[in-house]
Amino acid sequence: MKPIGPIPPAFADQRGMLRIAGRSAEEWVAAYGSPVFVYDFSGIAAQVARFRATMPAGVRLHYAVKANPYAPLVRGIAPLVDGLDVASAGELAEVLAFKPGHATSFAGPGKRDVELEAAVRAGVTLNVESENEVRRAIVIGERLGIAPRLAVRVNPDLELRGSGMKMGGRASPFGVDAERVPALVRAIVADGAEWRGFHIFAGSQALDTDALIETQAATVALAGRLAEESRHAPPMVNLGGGFGIPHFAGDTPVHVARIGTALAEALDRRGAMLGDTVFAIELGRWLVGEAGVYLTRVVDRKESRGETFLVVDGGLHHQLAASGNFGTVVRRNYPVAVAGRMGAVADDAVSVVGCLCTPLDRLADRVVLPRAEVGDVIAIFIAGAYGLTASPSAFLGHPAPAEVLAGAS
Amino acid sequence: MKPIGPIPPAFADQRGMLRIAGRSAEEWVAAYGSPVFVYDFSGIAAQVARFRATMPAGVRLHYAVKANPYAPLVRGIAPLVDGLDVASAGELAEVLAFKPGHATSFAGPGKRDVELEAAVRAGVTLNVESENEVRRAIVIGERLGIAPRLAVRVNPDLELRGSGMKMGGRASPFGVDAERVPALVRAIVADGAEWRGFHIFAGSQALDTDALIETQAATVALAGRLAEESRHAPPMVNLGGGFGIPHFAGDTPVHVARIGTALAEALDRRGAMLGDTVFAIELGRWLVGEAGVYLTRVVDRKESRGETFLVVDGGLHHQLAASGNFGTVVRRNYPVAVAGRMGAVADDAVSVVGCLCTPLDRLADRVVLPRAEVGDVIAIFIAGAYGLTASPSAFLGHPAPAEVLAGAS
Repeated sequence: MKPIGPIPPAFADQRGMLRIAGRSAEEWVAAYGSPVFVYDFSGIAAQVARFRATMPAGVRLHYAVKANPYAPLVRGIAPLVDGLDVASAGELAEVLAFKPGHATSFAGPGKRDVELEAAVRAGVTLNVESENEVRRAIVIGERLGIAPRLAVRVNPDLELRGSGMKMGGRASPFGVDAERVPALVRAIVADGAEWRGFHIFAGSQALDTDALIETQAATVALAGRLAEESRHAPPMVNLGGGFGIPHFAGDTPVHVARIGTALAEALDRRGAMLGDTVFAIELGRWLVGEAGVYLTRVVDRKESRGETFLVVDGGLHHQLAASGNFGTVVRRNYPVAVAGRMGAVADDAVSVVGCLCTPLDRLADRVVLPRAEVGDVIAIFIAGAYGLTASPSAFLGHPAPAEVLAGAS
Repeated sequence: MKPIGPIPPAFADQRGMLRIAGRSAEEWVAAYGSPVFVYDFSGIAAQVARFRATMPAGVRLHYAVKANPYAPLVRGIAPLVDGLDVASAGELAEVLAFKPGHATSFAGPGKRDVELEAAVRAGVTLNVESENEVRRAIVIGERLGIAPRLAVRVNPDLELRGSGMKMGGRASPFGVDAERVPALVRAIVADGAEWRGFHIFAGSQALDTDALIETQAATVALAGRLAEESRHAPPMVNLGGGFGIPHFAGDTPVHVARIGTALAEALDRRGAMLGDTVFAIELGRWLVGEAGVYLTRVVDRKESRGETFLVVDGGLHHQLAASGNFGTVVRRNYPVAVAGRMGAVADDAVSVVGCLCTPLDRLADRVVLPRAEVGDVIAIFIAGAYGLTASPSAFLGHPAPAEVLAGAS
């Protein structure tokens, strides 16, 4: 049998029927149908509070909308954070529907003209990804008579050790190689755009606290060097994010208090050109991932050649990452539980498979759980980030699941 | 640099601007926008004709709707084939909108009551996946006063060697272990359901012709044994499909004429209980995969640390499998071309990356292509099956691509 990942702290110590934001898993399924994604707003707010309590005063917190663009969630988190980061015109439109563009930034390697224009019109900061994109933004700004707000996304000459996805230190489609950045900054200023600073993202989903500390310090130092070589102080430096959360057996959480202390020291040592610079950290998964639970009912319990399968009415069309088919090489099990039997003795060896007619649709592979019968609800945790929108929801034509933001005022 | 997969025969010998169903790639993009999926109906019809020309007379051809449920395509292929196979109530509703249910079958391990009811009402053959599902279908049939049409999906005691996805020979969430099938067949008949036969699927995406031949023969033999032990002749045996198509460098097509000859011999040897049985082969990918091309325009061409990236306006949100993130362990390159320079000298080492802000979004990794500039159209082949609906189309909030069925009457 194979281990499962650690159940997030807000749910790990529960006994009996799983409760999320004051209601039982059965109540959520009865009210919204199965499957359903329940996002507990108090969990999100608690992560924001942890950030505020541990990071240096003045370091801004941005939410990366792509992690979970569910509109009530984005509208709920927006007043708690200092900015929103979007990755497409679609996400931008969602944000602009309730918030002016000045606190929003837009990154993405393949921005089309229509996307650049929407951003320039709204006063959104464009994290530009190439010299060519700068030229296109300037032309669009001239046509509109609006100075585009441009930050340079830097492909740093460092990488975040131990991150799930490395985004720096090598040839990359993201950003401009650090060595070409100073010339580009000078061109941006000379062309009359509004110079907004740097966006430096070295990796994501890192659980190694020391690596995060080291990378943040190197990023602050790199921003200082680039500012000096550019001879223009950056109004803002987005340090990226990269704070991971545990998904698999053996994973341990990052130690944010240590990161905060080390970042304060790194900022104290920052170069003179960064004296008035505002620093931001952009987080998605760390803010919302653990707050979400995917609930799905057992449709069949079947035996085959000595193995037991719990067949649920959800599947990889809603939770692709939990099936191990999105960005993972070796399939490992997400945290999973029988919602009605939290804390009960686990003595039933099963695989939890989805309802799709493909062997890929396996949500938990050979795990030991308390016994579940047809009709019971299975909970798959860490469903708050990169869940529904990061899954092929149209695959095989099943209905869309409900989503609900619970506990928001 | 890394190799790319073989361009399908219908396109491989083209020179200059890629043409699909009589129009150029540029015309398709001009008419439908970029990105766009173009499905060439003549390619689908040609595969149906190859099947008819090579398989034994009387062997039926079913289309597996999940491979590509685009409605015009399903409506186009329906008159050419003998049956449609669906995998959800959604696919079923799509099919029932234009076709009575009697030639349709429904397989899937987690059918809900609402799905069973829709199938029973429409006279669709349910490929039942467990004893429990049989009981549920019988109860629903009694409530509706309709005898459900039931075939038993068998988890065979054989597997398809060399198939991309094995579905037999081991513990499986699909079907009923062969050794329990005879008792279940007798129960189905005793309970007054309409006995429809067997559905035996040993694997999919196999390129090994000998393995397919061997598996089909073993499947016919297994159906004969199960019929004798059940003491009820199966009106229909769905032999599964499994015919693969080349995706990657070194892949070669299956030899369907050899399969047809061998299947005729296997059918000649079939047991007496199968004398009046109708046999069907259920194909998805093999019928439609090579007929589809995904066209996406280059938004940026950028250099980073000695590597060149073509950033396109499409990505893994439309073509997840081409990014190597769906059911593959080692990432390999799908066939890809610069649409305007078919057959030109390939001397430009590039990676083709999508517009999503994630390192996973790589459609071609370090390949050599004819030189492409911003504005050029890139063609990713084998986009006719498991493309758009098998991709996380909502990821990052980009607009949906167009789909078009070209050349249908």
